[in-house]
Amino acid sequence: MSLHNNKKGNKRMKVYFVSDGTAITAEVFGSAMLSFFDVDIEAESVPFLATIDQANGFVQQVNEEVEVGKAALVFYTISDPEISEVVQRCETHCYNLFGDLLSPIEKALGVPAQPNAQKAHGMKAGVYDIRIDAINYALANDDGVSIKNFEEADVILLGVSRSGKTPTSLYMAMQYGIKAANYPLNEDDFRAVGLPRILRPHKSKLYGLTIDPQRLHEIRSGRMAASKYASQRQCRYEIEEVEAIYRQERVSFLNTTLLSVEEISTKIMAEMQLSRHR
Amino acid sequence: MSLHNNKKGNKRMKVYFVSDGTAITAEVFGSAMLSFFDVDIEAESVPFLATIDQANGFVQQVNEEVEVGKAALVFYTISDPEISEVVQRCETHCYNLFGDLLSPIEKALGVPAQPNAQKAHGMKAGVYDIRIDAINYALANDDGVSIKNFEEADVILLGVSRSGKTPTSLYMAMQYGIKAANYPLNEDDFRAVGLPRILRPHKSKLYGLTIDPQRLHEIRSGRMAASKYASQRQCRYEIEEVEAIYRQERVSFLNTTLLSVEEISTKIMAEMQLSRHR
Repeated sequence: MSLHNNKKGNKRMKVYFVSDGTAITAEVFGSAMLSFFDVDIEAESVPFLATIDQANGFVQQVNEEVEVGKAALVFYTISDPEISEVVQRCETHCYNLFGDLLSPIEKALGVPAQPNAQKAHGMKAGVYDIRIDAINYALANDDGVSIKNFEEADVILLGVSRSGKTPTSLYMAMQYGIKAANYPLNEDDFRAVGLPRILRPHKSKLYGLTIDPQRLHEIRSGRMAASKYASQRQCRYEIEEVEAIYRQERVSFLNTTLLSVEEISTKIMAEMQLSRHR
Repeated sequence: MSLHNNKKGNKRMKVYFVSDGTAITAEVFGSAMLSFFDVDIEAESVPFLATIDQANGFVQQVNEEVEVGKAALVFYTISDPEISEVVQRCETHCYNLFGDLLSPIEKALGVPAQPNAQKAHGMKAGVYDIRIDAINYALANDDGVSIKNFEEADVILLGVSRSGKTPTSLYMAMQYGIKAANYPLNEDDFRAVGLPRILRPHKSKLYGLTIDPQRLHEIRSGRMAASKYASQRQCRYEIEEVEAIYRQERVSFLNTTLLSVEEISTKIMAEMQLSRHR
């Protein structure tokens, strides 16, 4: 297949992530692969492709696009062999993400693969409740909520307002079932000596977030432009103070400025030696 | 490698998901592969393996485990070729998840892979803000918040209390940057004629959740045992009423009882023709 160039001289690719389930595995893996390439991607997820008819319809669509020069890659994870066979009829580069590894893993494990066992993102009794429970915990133990239940926490995130505590606690709950409470440190805490009283019994669970003052200023300005709260001076002051507390109290901390919520969460879990609740 | 059997006669496997990044891709993909097998897994993520020293330490640990009969599989995604080479020295089944596909994709795209471009879960300017913005939107437009901003919503989730609206709206925000508001339907709405007034201008954005009354009873009992709210009778009544509203008003809806939050979210996105905000 030869690809047309777009006006900028970059390659423009139509890419499909296809699955008989959510297509999340195909999307995560395919996106990671494509991130190695400096190409302009138009990606589309095609989840729940679960019948032969749907598969035929998809193949026809792709083949029509290929014919008019719209290049395409197809990444797929399909557990039903008949549907998988139909998808292979796409007249373009079509990667069966599970295909190549199944047989080596069968040999390594010494047991046969069972296509019907495949239900990566399906509802597993128990697992669901753990995550929903952790999300509810994060929401109930977020900034500004008066009654704190820190006994149950796996980790308590500290930081000034808008340093990333809430998204991080929700991500840890959603992905890993981790109960992450969070506690906003503010001027009252800066004027006091030592850690806020409510945190002292839980010192081993504390983890601090910090952020570049300039970035904090931008984020806060998006919410309350031209306020004292968002001013560069105030942001600098709060970050200096909060980092001083972390150092004095020997609380591990992380600068979130250049990190995604996934990176922040996995770094905290590694440092605090937390693992997924299953 | 031969594997020892555990008492139940199942295989017990130690599995590592290794990366110089978050290891999320290795974990998602490796877990999906392993879900084909009826084996008892002890999985461990090893993120941020970013130096030769760390890689050597990891290899030594794995090789010691292999020597004492603790079987291991290693799934890895590492962009640095030198670190990748070290990890390959694990004396067990060691799968380079990116390795096999990079070269075919290079040929398909006609451009060379650039290892340093690989930053699948890293902070991309703009993308981060979209997701955080969507999370803040979901939190501000969740059950019980008085001022609703439905104009901005990509989708508005309807459902009775505890039918899964909040986790779904947060997942859609976190993973896809979708702004999902949610609106709890209650007895006042059941007694009224038609949809609540506040929803009427946004009919095309509405999506309903429903759930088996028995499951709803269990979930509510976990929060308020022996209450009217959690009673089987009340749960049956609310579900009958809410489904009647969906049917009368022709609002698409989904039964969430057996679905994970990933499945609920991807099904809604497919039906409402929503795509990831990039």
